[in-house]
Parts: sequence; structure tokens; C-alpha cells
Amino acid sequence: AEVKKIAVIAGDGIGPEVVAEAEKVLKRTEELFGYRFETEHALFGGIAIDEKGTPLPEETLAVCRKADAVLLGAVGGPKWDNNPKELRPETGLLGIRKALGLFSNLRPAVVFDCLKDASTLKPEVLEGTDLMVVRELTGGIYFGEKYRRDTDQGQEAVDTCAYNVSEVERIVRQAFEIAQKRRKKLASVDKANVLETSRLWREVVNRIAPEYPDVELEHVLVDNCAMQLLRRPSSFDVIVTENMFGDILSDEAAMLTGSIGMLSSASLGEGSFGLYEPVHGSAPDIAGQNLANPIATILSVALMFRMTFGYADAADAIEHAVADVLNAGHRTGDIAVDKSKAIGTVAMGDLIVAAM
Amino acid sequence: AEVKKIAVIAGDGIGPEVVAEAEKVLKRTEELFGYRFETEHALFGGIAIDEKGTPLPEETLAVCRKADAVLLGAVGGPKWDNNPKELRPETGLLGIRKALGLFSNLRPAVVFDCLKDASTLKPEVLEGTDLMVVRELTGGIYFGEKYRRDTDQGQEAVDTCAYNVSEVERIVRQAFEIAQKRRKKLASVDKANVLETSRLWREVVNRIAPEYPDVELEHVLVDNCAMQLLRRPSSFDVIVTENMFGDILSDEAAMLTGSIGMLSSASLGEGSFGLYEPVHGSAPDIAGQNLANPIATILSVALMFRMTFGYADAADAIEHAVADVLNAGHRTGDIAVDKSKAIGTVAMGDLIVAAM
Ligand SMILES: CC(C)[C@H](C(=O)O)[C@@H](O)C(=O)O
Ligand SMILES: CC(C)[C@H](C(=O)O)[C@@H](O)C(=O)O
Repeated sequence: AEVKKIAVIAGDGIGPEVVAEAEKVLKRTEELFGYRFETEHALFGGIAIDEKGTPLPEETLAVCRKADAVLLGAVGGPKWDNNPKELRPETGLLGIRKALGLFSNLRPAVVFDCLKDASTLKPEVLEGTDLMVVRELTGGIYFGEKYRRDTDQGQEAVDTCAYNVSEVERIVRQAFEIAQKRRKKLASVDKANVLETSRLWREVVNRIAPEYPDVELEHVLVDNCAMQLLRRPSSFDVIVTENMFGDILSDEAAMLTGSIGMLSSASLGEGSFGLYEPVHGSAPDIAGQNLANPIATILSVALMFRMTFGYADAADAIEHAVADVLNAGHRTGDIAVDKSKAIGTVAMGDLIVAAM
Repeated sequence: AEVKKIAVIAGDGIGPEVVAEAEKVLKRTEELFGYRFETEHALFGGIAIDEKGTPLPEETLAVCRKADAVLLGAVGGPKWDNNPKELRPETGLLGIRKALGLFSNLRPAVVFDCLKDASTLKPEVLEGTDLMVVRELTGGIYFGEKYRRDTDQGQEAVDTCAYNVSEVERIVRQAFEIAQKRRKKLASVDKANVLETSRLWREVVNRIAPEYPDVELEHVLVDNCAMQLLRRPSSFDVIVTENMFGDILSDEAAMLTGSIGMLSSASLGEGSFGLYEPVHGSAPDIAGQNLANPIATILSVALMFRMTFGYADAADAIEHAVADVLNAGHRTGDIAVDKSKAIGTVAMGDLIVAAM
């Protein structure tokens, strides 16, 4: 088989530990399915700040650009939280998204059967929840002009939120296409009663919608969406929204499943290239202690196989292996009911590899 | 007693019905406590568009300016949803906030004992939840410059989010003061890892915090807050945040209590003047059918008594009356477990008046 190049960015905190388990899964996939992967490691985030003086070194970008896909662990930690902007891990995250043109962030929020009770929502409300937030990732207030200026009311800070028609169109089309492959329901979330960018957003959605007549579309205001996610989570299929709203709503959606240690995400651009990472953060408090749950990262590999490489067989194998290991009762500390029986990061990775 | 002037804005949908019940409570308060109120009705929202050609007629503003407080029902409805911006009820809402200088929106989210099961959250998670969102209401992206321009990527829409030091300072001070009178915990919510306005916000909060040494302060990123509200709602006391984040988080917080038909809110400026309204909307689908729950509006009157007039005795009387009526098992349709036993808007109002 063709060799697929994967840029591996372990990052900070628990990043290196969970990524190490995901790499075992890559290796096992080669053995089982004959696919071939070439991995190249690169520095990113806090560790890159420490070692290279910048969160996103040019070499790292070069490694990513040569690759077919990127696997990312997690970045950030208190050590860098008070750094100036250019020396913060988040700045690297925004930079890599922009540099690689990753305009779309897909965050599936599903409830793992064996984790139903981990949610703070009632099981009957959660029943059947399986939604995907499609978040615009390279526009909006994240990337608009930012500055300070002096006024007679004291210093003023300004952020600018801008969207043009093409930016909205490409993400909305992608969301419609994803919805077509799922339950054919799309909720477009905006604040069209207040924001000009939202009014443009809604115009574009309405203009494009007739091209996807099989998809049932609803417009939901962002404040109402924050409520409806709580009231009727299972009624959502695909949610598409702009960058800032997507940041908030995708975290709310992830948390309500109770499965946050298990959720993976994909950031995509044009073509098949993608960056895959767990939804959870770098969890510095438990880093280096063999306590982290590697499942979200391992499932990110499955997502990569499915979305970038078209290796559905290997993706299935990984997902089934995870399900089998969970069904057999194995748990890392974050998802264990009886913490005393929890297993470590490495043991969980080994079990999944063995179950493939 | 001194005559207090109350501007009464019934608004649209169920607004007139719930406000009518709140007015009965005003009348009963006069009889029981000897306070004196003078109410003046004014047109606002959709009905003002229909009758005066603008959502916020000058006369309405004049009535509010002469008053000591404003009681608002609800505004908006599908009838006006596709109107141009100047002819939309929401535009009136933003206009009245700005014109009256109502820079602070207080939304208490409490769990009513008898409604514990109405929440989609597990009762044990909800236990003890009693929080207050303090939302900045006249700044940020709601009121910044908005425009369209042509680019070679198609039309572009722009919204501007701006905050100056004084705007942040006054709302943050108010939040600290509210926290001092409650459980002395303040969560300041921002997105300081991305937004310049949030960095300014956080600087101001940190500069002011030492003046309130008895209040325990935490900074929470908005995406994390959306999660933590679900994970540990009872751990929050006061949450202070900017306009857009406050819109989203206050709705999330309200919904998780399961008591949305019961929650009231206050919008305050400098001095004691305030606008009081239920958190729920105009519910056009049930308007005019004697189905709406008037409790949130009645509790808004209690909030007005407490915050603007200093009539704690009358506020207590209203709140106790509401509790008594609920404890006796009376429910409107929205909060009834057995819908066939639900009572109407008027009956609920009468029962509360009688219980005062
Ligand atoms: C770390 C931060 C800049 C980032 C974001 O807001 O996009 C994170 O919250 C995320 O969602 O990936
Ligand atoms: C109707 C809308 C403009 C308004 C807002 O976003 O402020 C509403 O959602 C609210 O929270 O009062």
C-alpha cells in the first residue's frame, strides 16, 4: 500500500502519553491491514515555546505540510498561561489552523453506552444523543483585527468579527453534506437578530439550502441553542455555526454526553488533509502519571482513517476494539465508577491494540 | 407612602396576559402594605411596530424616563421576524437598554424545589444550585459598529466588539458587590486566550479584585464555563461576563434549573432605576389562550420591590405567596406533571394574590 505520512504532534501535559498509545494503534493497523504509515514527530505548543522560543516553529509547519494528516495530542498548561500572546500555546493553535487552512472543525458528541451514567443529564434525556458540531475554524472574531486605543473612558479594546460569503459557503456546504450522510437534519446557529455577520450567515444558508432538499434545515439562535442542547439533545443531528459560537456550543455538547474523555475531533480544509485530536485538553494535573485516558486520541486515529485515508475497515476495527474493551469493563480513572479498579494509560492502550 | 411610578410595557405574545397578573399583585400590595403605585402603560415591540411604525416609540421612552421602574412582559413573534432591522422588536429591546443606560442584567437561576424534576439534569447534580448571571448589557458586539462591504471573496459582513475600562469596571464592581451579599464567590468569564476585549476585561477584574478581599474570584474561559455549568452548577454563585457570552450562558443556566417559566430578571443602570422582566419569551404559540405561566413576571415585581424600591416586606410576601401556591400543588401547563390538572394564567394570578 501507499505510504501515508502522519505528522505527530504530542504537545504538552498528557499529550505525549495519549499519543504514544495512538501510535501503537497505527503500528497494529499496519500489521493487521497492510497499510503503511510514516510518522514524523514535531514540536508544538508549550514544549515548542520552551525548546524553540515559539509555539509553532517553522519546522513543525513544514512537517505538517508534507504530511497527509496530523495527529495532535494536546497543548497548553499553567506554565505558559501568563506568557505574552506570541509565547502562548493557544497562539500556536490558532496559527496552525490558519496556516494549514483548516476551516472546519468537526466535533462529534455521542454517548457511549457504558458511560451513560457519567453524564449529569438524566439518561432518558440523553438517550439517542448523537450529534456533530461543525464549527467554522479560521474566521470570525478569532482572526479579526484586534487592538487597543485610548479613549476618555480609559483604554478601549477592540475585536473584529468578519465573515465573507465564501467563508460561510464552504463550511455550510460541508455541513449539509455531512448531514446528508447522517440523519439529514441541520441546525444552523447564529445570532441573526443582533449580528450583521449572522445575518450574512443566514442569507448564505438560505440560498444554499435548496441544493440539499433532502436535508431538513432549522435556524436556531445561539442563546436558544444553548438551551435546546440541554432540553432535547437527541433531537440534534448536525449543528453548523461560526467560530466563537462553535467553541462554546461544542464544549457544552461534549460535556452533556458525559463522555468527554472519549471524544475525538477533526479539523479539515480543502481536500482530504486533516488534523485529528481529542476534544479534551492537556490535563497538566495528571500528566506523566500514566493516568490519562488514551481513548479519545485512539478514536482520533479512527476518524483520520475514515475521513482522510478512506480506511473504513481499519477505522471499524479500532472502534470495535474500543467498544469491546469498555464492554469488558476496563476503565481509566476518569471514567471508572470504582476508581480503585481503574487501569493506566498504557494498559488501556495495550488492551485496545490486543482487541483489534 | 410616596407614590412610585411604574412604566408597564405589556409587549407581545403572552406579554399582556402575564403582565395583567403582575398588576393584580401591585394592587394587592397597595392594600396590604400601604405602598402606592402609579402605573402607565406604553407600547413596545411588535405591537408598537404595528401601531406606531417603530418598536420603541419616543412616547414609550418618555414614559420610562419619568418612571421609577419599568415592568416588561415580553416582545417579539414570527409576525415581525422577517422585517428589516429598524422594524424588529429586538431592535427596540437593544434601543431601550441603551437609551435607559441599563448596563447590567441580573438573571438569577435558582431551582424551585417543586420543580426539581422538570430539569433535564439529575436532581443530585442540581441540588443547591442558586446562581446569578451578571451580564454586561450595553456594550460589546451587540452595540459595536456593523457593516457590509464588498471583497473579492464576495460580500463581507463585519461586527465590532469593543469595551473600555469604565464599562468593564462598573459591571465588575456591581458583580463583586452582589457576590458580597451572597455566597462571596465570583466567576469572571471571558475568552482571554483569544480576545483582546477579554484581556482588557481580565486586567480590570484583577485590578479591582483586591478591593473585595472577602470575595473568592476565579477566571473561567467561556467554553469551559459552558461545560462547568453542566458539571457543577451548584458550585457557582455569581458569574459576571460580557454581553454576548452572558446572553448564551444565562440561557444555559436558566434552562438547567428546569424552572425557566419561573425566572425573573433585572436590568439596572446607575442609581436605583431598573427594568424588570421574566426570562422567558413571548411564546406566541400559546398567546391569548390563558395558558401562560405568570409566575416569572410576578416574581419580577418582587425583584423590583427589593432592588429598586427597597420594599423587602412586600417582596417577601410575593415570594412566599408563590411558594405557598406551588406547594399546594397548583401548576400552569408548562410546569404541570399532569397537564390535565393544569390551571390557567388568571387562576394562577388569583391564587397568588389571595395567598399574599
Ligand atoms: C485553546 C483555544 C484557543 C481553543 C479555541 O478556542 O479554539 C480551544 O478552546 C478549542 O476549542 O480548540
Ligand atoms: C432578543 C435578543 C436581542 C435578546 C439579547 O440577545 O439580548 C434576548 O436574547 C435577551 O437575552 O434578552
